[in-house]
Amino acid sequence: MEAESEFIPDGTVTSPNGFYAGATFAGIKKEGKDNLDLGILFSKVSATAAALFTANKIKAAPIILSQKRIQTERATALIVNSGVANACTSEQGLDDATEMATLTAKSIGVPTEEVLVASTGVIGQRLPMQKVRAGIKQIAHSTDGGHKLARAIMTTDTAPKEAAITVKTDTDKFTIGGIAKGSGMVHPDLSTFLCFLTTDAAIEPDFLRSSLKKTMDISFNMVSIDGDTSTNDMVLIMANGMAENQTIQANNSIADTFQQALDNLCVFLAKSIARDGEGATKLIEVTVSGTLTATEARQAARTITSSPLVKAAIHGNDPNWGRILAAAGRSGIELEETRIDLYLGDICLVKEGRPLPFDQKKAEDILTNTEVRIHLQLNLGTATATAWGCDLAEEYVTINSQYTT
Amino acid sequence: MEAESEFIPDGTVTSPNGFYAGATFAGIKKEGKDNLDLGILFSKVSATAAALFTANKIKAAPIILSQKRIQTERATALIVNSGVANACTSEQGLDDATEMATLTAKSIGVPTEEVLVASTGVIGQRLPMQKVRAGIKQIAHSTDGGHKLARAIMTTDTAPKEAAITVKTDTDKFTIGGIAKGSGMVHPDLSTFLCFLTTDAAIEPDFLRSSLKKTMDISFNMVSIDGDTSTNDMVLIMANGMAENQTIQANNSIADTFQQALDNLCVFLAKSIARDGEGATKLIEVTVSGTLTATEARQAARTITSSPLVKAAIHGNDPNWGRILAAAGRSGIELEETRIDLYLGDICLVKEGRPLPFDQKKAEDILTNTEVRIHLQLNLGTATATAWGCDLAEEYVTINSQYTT
Repeated sequence: MEAESEFIPDGTVTSPNGFYAGATFAGIKKEGKDNLDLGILFSKVSATAAALFTANKIKAAPIILSQKRIQTERATALIVNSGVANACTSEQGLDDATEMATLTAKSIGVPTEEVLVASTGVIGQRLPMQKVRAGIKQIAHSTDGGHKLARAIMTTDTAPKEAAITVKTDTDKFTIGGIAKGSGMVHPDLSTFLCFLTTDAAIEPDFLRSSLKKTMDISFNMVSIDGDTSTNDMVLIMANGMAENQTIQANNSIADTFQQALDNLCVFLAKSIARDGEGATKLIEVTVSGTLTATEARQAARTITSSPLVKAAIHGNDPNWGRILAAAGRSGIELEETRIDLYLGDICLVKEGRPLPFDQKKAEDILTNTEVRIHLQLNLGTATATAWGCDLAEEYVTINSQYTT
Repeated sequence: MEAESEFIPDGTVTSPNGFYAGATFAGIKKEGKDNLDLGILFSKVSATAAALFTANKIKAAPIILSQKRIQTERATALIVNSGVANACTSEQGLDDATEMATLTAKSIGVPTEEVLVASTGVIGQRLPMQKVRAGIKQIAHSTDGGHKLARAIMTTDTAPKEAAITVKTDTDKFTIGGIAKGSGMVHPDLSTFLCFLTTDAAIEPDFLRSSLKKTMDISFNMVSIDGDTSTNDMVLIMANGMAENQTIQANNSIADTFQQALDNLCVFLAKSIARDGEGATKLIEVTVSGTLTATEARQAARTITSSPLVKAAIHGNDPNWGRILAAAGRSGIELEETRIDLYLGDICLVKEGRPLPFDQKKAEDILTNTEVRIHLQLNLGTATATAWGCDLAEEYVTINSQYTT
């Protein structure tokens, strides 16, 4: 099938038809730190939904609630706050999350079972429910409210992450939009990752769920490490069918087109998250190729992007490439030192395991860019994977040593 | 058997009988950065030896050489340099490591096959062999040369790590000494770990090897994470039998006494390494108890001590305890949130999964100490483990962004 897909200028989670959002400053965050901390996203009509949640054994109250509710494969609305994670808050936390959903359901007139909840912020503190109750009443919803919502979910993020893609085929036209937050980027301690996706396409629930999983593997999971997740991580997609397309399902002609568009959108958001790691000054893109399996390529690429020593060297514009090989060597994958080629941008640093003389000045120039590309070719097989990360700056430590105080 | 063991004041790797060491500044490190970068350790008589090496698939040349030579279970001497790791240096690197051993063998008059080699420093650079050759000739050996050797293996370490323990039984008396280096302490990127142990006890080779492995599991491996090793990691123990004790072997009466003394020595050195992590200002000791298995206790304790977010919070004297539970939650072990108790020093922060109100000022006071103790009780089983780490300071990033340049 012929299909065209393109990013919409200024696109966001409310770009698809029938989605509304809004946000307010309820006072959950400290005064003066950003202006928004509570927001709502909803669809005009009930939507098919799929979601993935943290693998952490300690799960925040909103995760427990949302995980239960998504089993119906329907979700019409989401309420989300930043500032307090509502994690390690025992039964009280669950009551608070449930009340947030109930109040939201009343406020916008949807069934409470179709409202999901997400939170991000400090663990172990109770939500200031009076402020939350007042806040929910204050939120005004609109079809361009996605921009506000993108800001309301920020914690130490310095910029909102949002985008939307429109897909046109011979017969149909639909849009996918999304917002995300990330920020604490030194592994294995990804701070809360949230991503809310919407589409006006009609999609069969099983396909929606498998499609979301596939996308995660090549996008957000290549920024974070599977399983090393915070107490509050959540990714949600709602499909409300208002584009009136033929319902997308596995094996029908539009399935691949949808998957590709969702992949592109999520890779864009994932890179935005990587670029905005706490204290980060640049995006690092690592491609590992020539491994025996895709799993190995993924594993090596992620080990390299999450190496504090690699990240710190790149921060200092120091072409200390030995740290890249050392990271690959301890990543657990098969490799043969004498087959390895390593590139920094277009400079070949290592050929068949031998260090090549290189222009130090040119290497430092490449490293001063805001996007640094590394390519490790292992020459053992044909698999390949790309991961994203950021440099490690002193600022990261400053931010993280003064978070609750 | 009655046995007394105590740390010797000012003890080091040459405290046991018959061990000599010396070091010089050969010019491998940058001028002015510490004064020593090349050293030799040897026993007056041929010694039984055991060693463990990095699990990294990229192995430095000295590791490849030493791993081959230790198969004889004999080692009489060691030559070690800092400044250049001699890793990723292909055949040339192996030739250089071999030549270092040969020159050392000649200089002190031992068989070259009984000389091991270790290196630490920048990966991918060739050793300046002219300087190494001249350096080996300059080294003067003495029975208190261990102190100099401890300094010669330092890279970003700020203090040498050395100690010795003497054991007295009814019939025998022997000493165990050791030096170590560590420093880059943010996981999963432990910089090169080296530890050289000596004893004048006579020990059967199989018992020596298994004893070394056991010790590693409760000492250095509780600072680093198994497998996440640099290209150059090595721990070596030489036993020269000059104490003329009855040969220690598995199941004889002195075996446990020896094991206990070796454990104590290595825990001391491991804590010294943790305390001196790059940029660190304090030692963090995490005990996890009440797990179903010892492996789980170890895993959780290490995940917590290696969490950048926990480390940064402790650096900032911030009792942000949620990060400790979140780290335990993603460590992959079994836990039940409603059974967890958490202590910071003597303050109980969480009881049966519920946050307790606590005196913020008192918690901050505890965190300002140079040793911070955390105890996580999971109340599921009876296993326990202790791990050590350090806080994460801005200085860590500064050091690691300017390492080769």
